[in-house]
Amino acid sequence: MGMEHPSEIVVLRLGHRPGRDDRMTTHVALTARALGADRVLLPAHANDAIATARDVTDRFGGTFTVEPTDSPVAQLRSWEGLAVHLTMYGLPVEAVEKKLRTKTAETPLLVVVGSEKVPFEVYEAASFNVAVTNQPHSEVAALAVLLDRLYDGAAAKREWPGAEKHVVPQETGKRVVDAQ
Amino acid sequence: MGMEHPSEIVVLRLGHRPGRDDRMTTHVALTARALGADRVLLPAHANDAIATARDVTDRFGGTFTVEPTDSPVAQLRSWEGLAVHLTMYGLPVEAVEKKLRTKTAETPLLVVVGSEKVPFEVYEAASFNVAVTNQPHSEVAALAVLLDRLYDGAAAKREWPGAEKHVVPQETGKRVVDAQ
Repeated sequence: MGMEHPSEIVVLRLGHRPGRDDRMTTHVALTARALGADRVLLPAHANDAIATARDVTDRFGGTFTVEPTDSPVAQLRSWEGLAVHLTMYGLPVEAVEKKLRTKTAETPLLVVVGSEKVPFEVYEAASFNVAVTNQPHSEVAALAVLLDRLYDGAAAKREWPGAEKHVVPQETGKRVVDAQ
Repeated sequence: MGMEHPSEIVVLRLGHRPGRDDRMTTHVALTARALGADRVLLPAHANDAIATARDVTDRFGGTFTVEPTDSPVAQLRSWEGLAVHLTMYGLPVEAVEKKLRTKTAETPLLVVVGSEKVPFEVYEAASFNVAVTNQPHSEVAALAVLLDRLYDGAAAKREWPGAEKHVVPQETGKRVVDAQ
């Protein structure tokens, strides 16, 4: 469709409560990878999520990287490209999507995904506060929809170099084969 | 765009381990609601998720319903419309999306969202086993992308009758007002 795709997308997970947030943080990381982001920055104490996301990348390939950070907010503050903060209180994704696509074709994008209690500083530091519907739902769902729209669904066509195994799509059942 | 929208979409959550799955099941339910599904069927012992999803509907409105079921697999077995099972092993969503849109304009759709260890019967009972990328990620992300595509992003334009409060989109910060 001649659509330009984002030059680089990095997902930043704000905050993480060990135990309680393990699966959500893991799903944020895996969703970022599967739907086309280049990197994810996770709070350094999110050990389980970091290990799982790296393990999935080792097995299923691709150049995605998982980077621990001691201060997610400092990462946002020092980010030099565009930054989108996903929040149900923000502007509808429909209102900014076109602008984001144009800008991210040349400028790296940081997508900030909150957990509980996002500090006001994050709203201020973001280039755009963006809502995937203004209803309460899930940071994983919001991230998925944003990435799917920014890449225009192209994640499905990605190559996953270095994979140990890959899934062969089936009408019924499961088929996983070892990569060469 | 003149696109037809689905007549009815019901989301079915298979399986639920109390404690471990509470937040994921809650996010499945809230994502279903926010992105336009009409109902969600949750395992009857998913008490926390059922309560949270009902509470959100009470506060933020809409006609979405949360229905407990003692046997999710039996619900799938007795479903008379189309059934899509979301699985990383299935056919790419791109391969079935157009067909689904055409069929669901007239036929109710059940979207089946697994947790761990989906029985083979589910693969067989589904009309389509569908993958949002063939990579491991998140059932919440897969559900979000599927709904966003089937409704062509129209969830953002939904009305939420009976809401006690609603969010007024802001460039920065939060604004929630009481509904009349």
